[in-house]
Amino acid sequence: MSEIREIHQEGPHSFTMGPYGEPLARVKSGETVAIYTEDAFGGVIDSESTSPSEVLGDYLNPQTGPIYVEGAEPGDTLAVKIEAIEFTRDWAVSATIPYFGGLTSTNLTAMLQDPLPERVWKYRVEDGFARRGNWEIPVAPFVGTIGTSPQIEALSALAPGDHGGNMDVPDTSPGNTVYLPVRVDGAYFFTGDCHVAQGHGELCGVALEITAKVTLTFEVIKGRRIAWPRIESDTHIMCVGSARPMEDAARIAYSELVGWMASDYGYEKMDAYQLLTQAGELYVGNMVDTTYSLVARCDKRYLEG
Amino acid sequence: MSEIREIHQEGPHSFTMGPYGEPLARVKSGETVAIYTEDAFGGVIDSESTSPSEVLGDYLNPQTGPIYVEGAEPGDTLAVKIEAIEFTRDWAVSATIPYFGGLTSTNLTAMLQDPLPERVWKYRVEDGFARRGNWEIPVAPFVGTIGTSPQIEALSALAPGDHGGNMDVPDTSPGNTVYLPVRVDGAYFFTGDCHVAQGHGELCGVALEITAKVTLTFEVIKGRRIAWPRIESDTHIMCVGSARPMEDAARIAYSELVGWMASDYGYEKMDAYQLLTQAGELYVGNMVDTTYSLVARCDKRYLEG
Amino acid sequence: MSEIREIHQEGPHSFTMGPYGEPLARVKSGETVAIYTEDAFGGVIDSESTSPSEVLGDYLNPQTGPIYVEGAEPGDTLAVKIEAIEFTRDWAVSATIPYFGGLTSTNLTAMLQDPLPERVWKYRVEDGFARRGNWEIPVAPFVGTIGTSPQIEALSALAPGDHGGNMDVPDTSPGNTVYLPVRVDGAYFFTGDCHVAQGHGELCGVALEITAKVTLTFEVIKGRRIAWPRIESDTHIMCVGSARPMEDAARIAYSELVGWMASDYGYEKMDAYQLLTQAGELYVGNMVDTTYSLVARCDKRYLEG
Amino acid sequence: MSEIREIHQEGPHSFTMGPYGEPLARVKSGETVAIYTEDAFGGVIDSESTSPSEVLGDYLNPQTGPIYVEGAEPGDTLAVKIEAIEFTRDWAVSATIPYFGGLTSTNLTAMLQDPLPERVWKYRVEDGFARRGNWEIPVAPFVGTIGTSPQIEALSALAPGDHGGNMDVPDTSPGNTVYLPVRVDGAYFFTGDCHVAQGHGELCGVALEITAKVTLTFEVIKGRRIAWPRIESDTHIMCVGSARPMEDAARIAYSELVGWMASDYGYEKMDAYQLLTQAGELYVGNMVDTTYSLVARCDKRYLEG
Repeated sequence: MSEIREIHQEGPHSFTMGPYGEPLARVKSGETVAIYTEDAFGGVIDSESTSPSEVLGDYLNPQTGPIYVEGAEPGDTLAVKIEAIEFTRDWAVSATIPYFGGLTSTNLTAMLQDPLPERVWKYRVEDGFARRGNWEIPVAPFVGTIGTSPQIEALSALAPGDHGGNMDVPDTSPGNTVYLPVRVDGAYFFTGDCHVAQGHGELCGVALEITAKVTLTFEVIKGRRIAWPRIESDTHIMCVGSARPMEDAARIAYSELVGWMASDYGYEKMDAYQLLTQAGELYVGNMVDTTYSLVARCDKRYLEG
Repeated sequence: MSEIREIHQEGPHSFTMGPYGEPLARVKSGETVAIYTEDAFGGVIDSESTSPSEVLGDYLNPQTGPIYVEGAEPGDTLAVKIEAIEFTRDWAVSATIPYFGGLTSTNLTAMLQDPLPERVWKYRVEDGFARRGNWEIPVAPFVGTIGTSPQIEALSALAPGDHGGNMDVPDTSPGNTVYLPVRVDGAYFFTGDCHVAQGHGELCGVALEITAKVTLTFEVIKGRRIAWPRIESDTHIMCVGSARPMEDAARIAYSELVGWMASDYGYEKMDAYQLLTQAGELYVGNMVDTTYSLVARCDKRYLEG
Repeated sequence: MSEIREIHQEGPHSFTMGPYGEPLARVKSGETVAIYTEDAFGGVIDSESTSPSEVLGDYLNPQTGPIYVEGAEPGDTLAVKIEAIEFTRDWAVSATIPYFGGLTSTNLTAMLQDPLPERVWKYRVEDGFARRGNWEIPVAPFVGTIGTSPQIEALSALAPGDHGGNMDVPDTSPGNTVYLPVRVDGAYFFTGDCHVAQGHGELCGVALEITAKVTLTFEVIKGRRIAWPRIESDTHIMCVGSARPMEDAARIAYSELVGWMASDYGYEKMDAYQLLTQAGELYVGNMVDTTYSLVARCDKRYLEG
Repeated sequence: MSEIREIHQEGPHSFTMGPYGEPLARVKSGETVAIYTEDAFGGVIDSESTSPSEVLGDYLNPQTGPIYVEGAEPGDTLAVKIEAIEFTRDWAVSATIPYFGGLTSTNLTAMLQDPLPERVWKYRVEDGFARRGNWEIPVAPFVGTIGTSPQIEALSALAPGDHGGNMDVPDTSPGNTVYLPVRVDGAYFFTGDCHVAQGHGELCGVALEITAKVTLTFEVIKGRRIAWPRIESDTHIMCVGSARPMEDAARIAYSELVGWMASDYGYEKMDAYQLLTQAGELYVGNMVDTTYSLVARCDKRYLEG
């Protein structure tokens, strides 16, 4: 195996996913690269005595990219195999930020109440755990944000959508392949926001944030058009829907999965609907971002001839 | 062990949960009984050639009850340990019903489109599986509907809510204990709607419906007031929220769980919020009933001293 | 004109709408009666120094009823012409109640924040205005709650739904006719909760609450089945949808209106959809109750030959 | 009065609102200009025999812009007085488009049902009416889309948001002033999508679309920061919230209005909340776009002395 090329962000990170920036790097279909990522705060929250609202700037969630994938054209699919996620520091951080999170009013769910208190929780990452006091959270790393450029929009790196983005779904993890729509020449791939681990929903809005080196293999699937991101593991196929209200995210995720079972696995549409009724899995990735992300899953045992 | 008393519905089943009917039976705190339950269709869909809309009557989801629990008073909690669920026939049935389900417009999400086709799927239940054609769904039984009476309302047996009801969450299963609020003298307990298995969300609206004998142990916890149903397994504590939109069900489930961790396990509220951010679990029970039911879970490893 | 019969609540008011109580009175189709109603708090908030959470009991929104309408059978429609609303006292009251209202978290939209402060606002009602300090709100009376019994459910008097109930829509006002579904013999009609006036959405959850004498004429329309409440004025036909999320209430209201235009006014369904796109009206009655109520309206000028 | 400068789009229209394009024109604070706008379809639907899905391209809703407003800097507000809207043709068009609209499943509210039929409705615009068959819709012109650039995002011209955009609210009409946040140097103003008239909600998703000449006066209000668009008429102040679910749009609109009454009109926050409960107005602009737009209004009579 040849040495893997490393990609560091040169110059400022991207705070949007869009077609308007210059590519940071170019990769070939089939190539494996290692991409260095910042944490969601750009590293400025590094102590429990920090006040997030004082140190955070206008932009959050810095992304490494755009990466130009040669040969990718609108109408193709970009398959991104997550080979490995290696942390590049030994601590992770979470925080509550005023009017942001799942159990507080926000700028979108606006109310007249006072905010919850600001707090920072810092964890040591060691021996396969994130540790703080007597808490031990098993390490289960994934990339919180991964996506391609929309056709003409430049979307905030905080936004999940049909381009991927800040989905915060734990299945974008080592060993799995993420399928993303290609909507511009070169796909313009972005990633960042690695998490040591995260519960379903990312309840307070901030997971165990960390910097990382993410090793990915890119593959362009020509002439294959998908509408929403998909994930494949050894055992499951999965579709991600991102929308509000949350039931719309669920509807997208499951109806995309019905479509995948129909197009690729010989299911009649109503039979796929039935099978998923009895055996489908559905969990909440995030209930805190600009849209909520839900993952619908089908065990591959139901996809065999 | 003495013989377990069996409770069969005498006369018609209940199609509401409320305080207005005569108790079918009286049980003591600490008593174990076996309750026979109908399927959600009252058994009228028994063939794949049946047209659901022709055979279904005005009421669905017949419940066995009300069962009067001696000593239960408003402000108490009723703990119901699910000892066993034994099927009383060897087939299960699912169906699509016009304008009902998760990927169709409904009477509440009203649109002008034509309905999806009606279909019935009948499964053999044998050897630990529900089988149809080459599908094999592992048996994972639970009671779809379980609840107590509201204080003065009589709610449809199709409705989940803060009284429990038609929650359709797979964790109301053998080995687990369901905690329900007591809002009237005697609690007025109802159950029914057993499922051989069900995917998350109960996507088409109808799980693997079956008749069953459900063995339960009742315990009255005096002076303990809860606002929403709770579940406890060997490994997890869980809260169920039922509401629309779906994010409101998620908010209820997680905020009740924060409250439980604070009241019983010494957590400061913001710390519980943080811990659940990193380690909480959240899944969709149903996305098809009058309100959606979501389950938030916390592993008991985080609750020890 | 003969003297109008007066109906006072004998015994306690109803806090549910359902078929389980004894009728308070019987009226004939075509009969006009005057019904006395309590305010939504049963009169216990009568001063700005009152603390609502200390004086309010378990139940809110007392209704006068049930009134048995002779000849009404399931499948009919009950037309209720609102002849007049006369206040029976000279003051109205509004209040903020902890975790209740449109710009606060609630039991259904649960968050961890502290509640907003409790406050009471008392108004003099005189000269066609509700006055407090330099505020002068023009009197525009309507019944906040009006409905019939569901088939087998008994629903909280705080709940709007397909039976009517606590819709809080300003078009249930003198001169207009409310059409309600009949789901039990005698219809079992309830009303209460008169408002001196109210803004769209009933923002803090409590309008200008007052006691009143409401004069109504009942008419049974045999064999006419409606799914949701309707209202007719001299100038408009209207449908009320009550659901969460709010877009579902909007969808119900407009799709019922499309159906009405198709069944009674010769519109092809897609043409009704088109006409309402350009000329329909839609406002928010309440954004605070157990479900939100929206009113879709069509000017009668579009219904003529 | 000097002659008003006319601004025609040179080169292609904008299909996003963002900071990445070159300004089409520069205007001074205080200047009045006339801007020519395309219809939402770029004019390609001009006959009732057109099939929208065959003629529509990838992008919809062409905007004229960006227009650079001299002196406008982030943190300022741009006041845009709508002086006049003059139609530049004598016909308007509406249509149903597959899986787009208020009473159909869509890409965001995904279901398995077949789409509604495609149809085109073409109207003559004459004598103050849009006429088709026996329908006569009174002309009530407004700009459907009006906004400034987000800070770093480029958002689809179909999207309403806190930058304005495709709000489709009938109060962006002649005589009214729209206040927009300035988030980039020069504000980067866009407008288009004029409507001859539109009902509340823009039910099928397409109003009476027309080309127009829009006369606007720009004023930069230095150092005044607003979070969401505002509108002022002779009689009302208004705030526009755009979000999903619809109740979130309502919460934004009303809480922004509370804030405006507090900051500029001496209202204590809880008193503004109370006053709007009794006298606030709230209507649905659109229930069809990527987010729903609602308008909360307060009569100026409540803002005096």
